[in-house]
Amino acid sequence: MQRSLIKHCRNCGTAVVYRVPDDGDTRERAVCPACNTIHYENPLNVVGTVPVWGDQVLLCKRNIEPRWGKWTLPAGFMELNETTAQGAERETDEEAGAHIAMGPLFAVLNVRRVGQVHLFYRATLLSDQFNPGTETIEARLFTEAEVPWEDIAFRTVKETLEHYFADRRAGRFVLHTLDIV
Amino acid sequence: MQRSLIKHCRNCGTAVVYRVPDDGDTRERAVCPACNTIHYENPLNVVGTVPVWGDQVLLCKRNIEPRWGKWTLPAGFMELNETTAQGAERETDEEAGAHIAMGPLFAVLNVRRVGQVHLFYRATLLSDQFNPGTETIEARLFTEAEVPWEDIAFRTVKETLEHYFADRRAGRFVLHTLDIV
Repeated sequence: MQRSLIKHCRNCGTAVVYRVPDDGDTRERAVCPACNTIHYENPLNVVGTVPVWGDQVLLCKRNIEPRWGKWTLPAGFMELNETTAQGAERETDEEAGAHIAMGPLFAVLNVRRVGQVHLFYRATLLSDQFNPGTETIEARLFTEAEVPWEDIAFRTVKETLEHYFADRRAGRFVLHTLDIV
Repeated sequence: MQRSLIKHCRNCGTAVVYRVPDDGDTRERAVCPACNTIHYENPLNVVGTVPVWGDQVLLCKRNIEPRWGKWTLPAGFMELNETTAQGAERETDEEAGAHIAMGPLFAVLNVRRVGQVHLFYRATLLSDQFNPGTETIEARLFTEAEVPWEDIAFRTVKETLEHYFADRRAGRFVLHTLDIV
């Protein structure tokens, strides 16, 4: 899903030029010299869950790049026609085949370098039987002591898991907002 | 910033076809029959602030469509190379010329129908002197009783303001997550 450079106009196919539009904008955009379409590129949301079964958390072993073979919380790019929570629930179903009851928003993590905002919700598993999709090698439950900390796929997942276990030990859950630099 | 339909490939300019890609995807995307580029469209983040000066809140009278002449909290589309908080602070400067100290994330509002997620931060104004940009007719402070509730530009802004004043009356601020339907 890494986006390629905009070379041609989405409306008419003409080669674009990069310049600051004449509409008061202050940033360079890909502008079409033929039909004047301005092409914007904006950050993407990644939405996921922390699915919990008793004192265990569900992790998925990735069957796709990047980070093939590493463990992650179920998460993926938010799509049109869904809310952040609906996207998080969808990804949990697609990647783990897990049935959950959605909980509150738990972490909002900015990953500015790659133009992403990651949003994780707490969730309660309704069963400990999973049916992982093609993007997942294995879906399984881990206690805090069992979590493979050295093989977690992404910084945002590691931070979210650390905050989850810390909050659980503290006996209260709060929203965490973090910038990953 | 309403996005137009993708008709041509961003990479090579060929007319795209809409189909489900062969990579395990389940949704129709604009796919290039010449170079195989897959074009994704995802929700956009709108980031803004609730800028507070004593018991007053800063609102901006819009000088642009949609909702020209209506009042809004300073907010706009999140850009690449910034965090949600940095975008919210930038928009507050661009639209109101207001200097603020950023506070915590206060509201996350999903507007699924238009493919947007709105994130508002609380903020403390460092001065009651403003310097609105070209997108703003007027920037001014309102007490709760003075807020022009019938002339608020967007549902997300109205909801955020209502929750802000309710929390202030309650003497505690919490994160609000809402779906605008």
